[in-house]
Amino acid sequence: VLVIALVLLVLPSSAQRQPPFVDSVLISPPGVPPPPLPAESMTIPTAEGHDIRVVVVARGLSHPWSLAFLPEGGILVTERGGRLRVMENGRLSPDPIAGVPEVFAEGTAGLMDVALHPRFVENRLVYFTYSKPIGAHRSTLALARGRLDHRTLTDVRDVFVTRPDISGGSRIVFGRDGALFMTTGAGGGIAAQDPGNYGGKVLRLTEDGGVPPDNPFVGRAGYKPEVYTLGHRNSLGLAVHPVNGQVWQNENGPNGGDEINVLEPGRNYGWPLVSYGRTYAGPRQSEQPWRAEFEQPTVFWVPSISVSGMAFYTGSRFEKWTGNVFVGGLRTGGIPGTGHLERLVFNRQMEEIRRESLLGELRRRMRDVRQGPDGLLYCLTDDEQDAALLRLEPIS
Amino acid sequence: VLVIALVLLVLPSSAQRQPPFVDSVLISPPGVPPPPLPAESMTIPTAEGHDIRVVVVARGLSHPWSLAFLPEGGILVTERGGRLRVMENGRLSPDPIAGVPEVFAEGTAGLMDVALHPRFVENRLVYFTYSKPIGAHRSTLALARGRLDHRTLTDVRDVFVTRPDISGGSRIVFGRDGALFMTTGAGGGIAAQDPGNYGGKVLRLTEDGGVPPDNPFVGRAGYKPEVYTLGHRNSLGLAVHPVNGQVWQNENGPNGGDEINVLEPGRNYGWPLVSYGRTYAGPRQSEQPWRAEFEQPTVFWVPSISVSGMAFYTGSRFEKWTGNVFVGGLRTGGIPGTGHLERLVFNRQMEEIRRESLLGELRRRMRDVRQGPDGLLYCLTDDEQDAALLRLEPIS
Repeated sequence: VLVIALVLLVLPSSAQRQPPFVDSVLISPPGVPPPPLPAESMTIPTAEGHDIRVVVVARGLSHPWSLAFLPEGGILVTERGGRLRVMENGRLSPDPIAGVPEVFAEGTAGLMDVALHPRFVENRLVYFTYSKPIGAHRSTLALARGRLDHRTLTDVRDVFVTRPDISGGSRIVFGRDGALFMTTGAGGGIAAQDPGNYGGKVLRLTEDGGVPPDNPFVGRAGYKPEVYTLGHRNSLGLAVHPVNGQVWQNENGPNGGDEINVLEPGRNYGWPLVSYGRTYAGPRQSEQPWRAEFEQPTVFWVPSISVSGMAFYTGSRFEKWTGNVFVGGLRTGGIPGTGHLERLVFNRQMEEIRRESLLGELRRRMRDVRQGPDGLLYCLTDDEQDAALLRLEPIS
Repeated sequence: VLVIALVLLVLPSSAQRQPPFVDSVLISPPGVPPPPLPAESMTIPTAEGHDIRVVVVARGLSHPWSLAFLPEGGILVTERGGRLRVMENGRLSPDPIAGVPEVFAEGTAGLMDVALHPRFVENRLVYFTYSKPIGAHRSTLALARGRLDHRTLTDVRDVFVTRPDISGGSRIVFGRDGALFMTTGAGGGIAAQDPGNYGGKVLRLTEDGGVPPDNPFVGRAGYKPEVYTLGHRNSLGLAVHPVNGQVWQNENGPNGGDEINVLEPGRNYGWPLVSYGRTYAGPRQSEQPWRAEFEQPTVFWVPSISVSGMAFYTGSRFEKWTGNVFVGGLRTGGIPGTGHLERLVFNRQMEEIRRESLLGELRRRMRDVRQGPDGLLYCLTDDEQDAALLRLEPIS
């Protein structure tokens, strides 16, 4: 009966002489190819009335994922394939940093986020997340750290390894309280709602990968004690609010439903039971997009922009952007060749006011965005070949 | 206490040396100025892998709002200021069609939609909606019709006038059943939820402006008998599904929450009690974005694109676009200078699959989009001066 109904639905009304609808919607379109990167820089206008310069700081990267600014100068950049690169004296060293463990680099798995210990100047500790091979074609998410000694990581060890196999992206950030927050991918099914499963969570760890005694579920039967929040999908952005210290997280919805969440200990953010998105095939992810027992996102996107790295802009170099949030977008609306950098403006209560799309001209997936110690913004494109580190500069 | 709390919130943490956030968020940015219109046409790439040509068919319009294709050739175009223009033999006549009544043209009020009677070839009847002056600085929404005789409307009369004063945009469309559907603006307050108020509704009328006897609320105390659906905000798009005859309506949310609704008789679509949007100042329009008693939109946008005219594409000239829905966008995310044309792809169950943003390069507000009898797509930009009628053509 269902088949007959579908056929009738697409039969044209002969009176109207309408052609039948074409059923090719599940085939992804090719998208618009990106233009070449500018040789050195390009100027683009912005909605605030000032132009900015986009400078290609480095290129030739492959799927760069994250970056960290070294206090002595220089920038660490992870590549998903497993290399930890370094920019020194304004150029990208061809030799990766030695000491990164073997990484499972298939599909979206690989080396991901990188962050310096809050007292890096004293202890030189570099933290990173990666997909750890645990057998033939298997991996799980791990958090490792090592001591950066010139161009080598020493004393490298895993400080936390998820079980069972967890896939998906992972960001880390140190909170004001010294704890380390780490996101985990949800995978399929209902794992994100299972407090005894590491999937689809934000974890809160000590700097050694242990359990902080004030974690919300410590000592509760059936709960992993590292869990800080539940009910997340694929979290690709994590940042600490510069004024109040709240941890902000973002996650990808499927076809619609990307979110920014303000994390509160022990709370559940609803995936996969509530979502503003649809499944890729079309039906809604959940008949209700909202339930009282789950936390609402503070920001969400429909259609999806495929949110990735996120940063609060606290500098004064872009005087109209102070207090804004920047989020990388990998693609909009399910259309290839559409990445951009999104600027979000909030009022003093951190309620959203408006959003500007930037860098869309480049037609590149924007994997990460960070504020540099120089008060400028840095972005990573996600190309397989010739990905770039970009710097945004104001033009007065 | 509130004042003190706000001051504390923005005080920088001296340990972090963060600058305070700037509180200028309620001032609209200037936006990016639009480039000049192309002299004749421009070529743009699309996600489906084929380029399209955008042809400037006419320019020099002022706030054009809607268009209708005459079966004898030629195109009628309304201008918000009150002129009904006509394209003949490929050029825009400098002389407007005579016979349009006086229009209240202030702010967003004025002459709006235009539609031909389904048997226009026999009766030459043209319908249009407009803001009718009803005293000093007052107006209300009216539906009028006249007989098109060469370049003059004759026998012009109001067939339906809303009471009390209704403002906001209005679209009209004839359904397959011969009834005329007409949208009304919600204004402020709770009018859209009041079944005895014409504001924030879709009305269903006979071709003479009367009440069809099968309307859902006929004979119900406290209900206006013309009401077909309730709970709408500012409806700027209305189109009949070419296969199943459903009436699709779109409406503007405030800061987020634009919607496409599939209209079912007697149903309530929730404005202002539920919305996916925020108020312009930042707080959510409703703490819950969903309630079981209201109909859900089939498509929604967060952030808003300021949806306007809407069309199903049923032609075969753009072979990858058959069955897609096109929606004009006046601006995205609250940022001036960002209009575009949005293409939405559905599966056979009319569930959304993906969305492509087109014509964003033009940086112009897109007021309307229609399919021409030639199987091409026509768009109107919303400029005050030198607005354009654009035609999209495939390039094979």
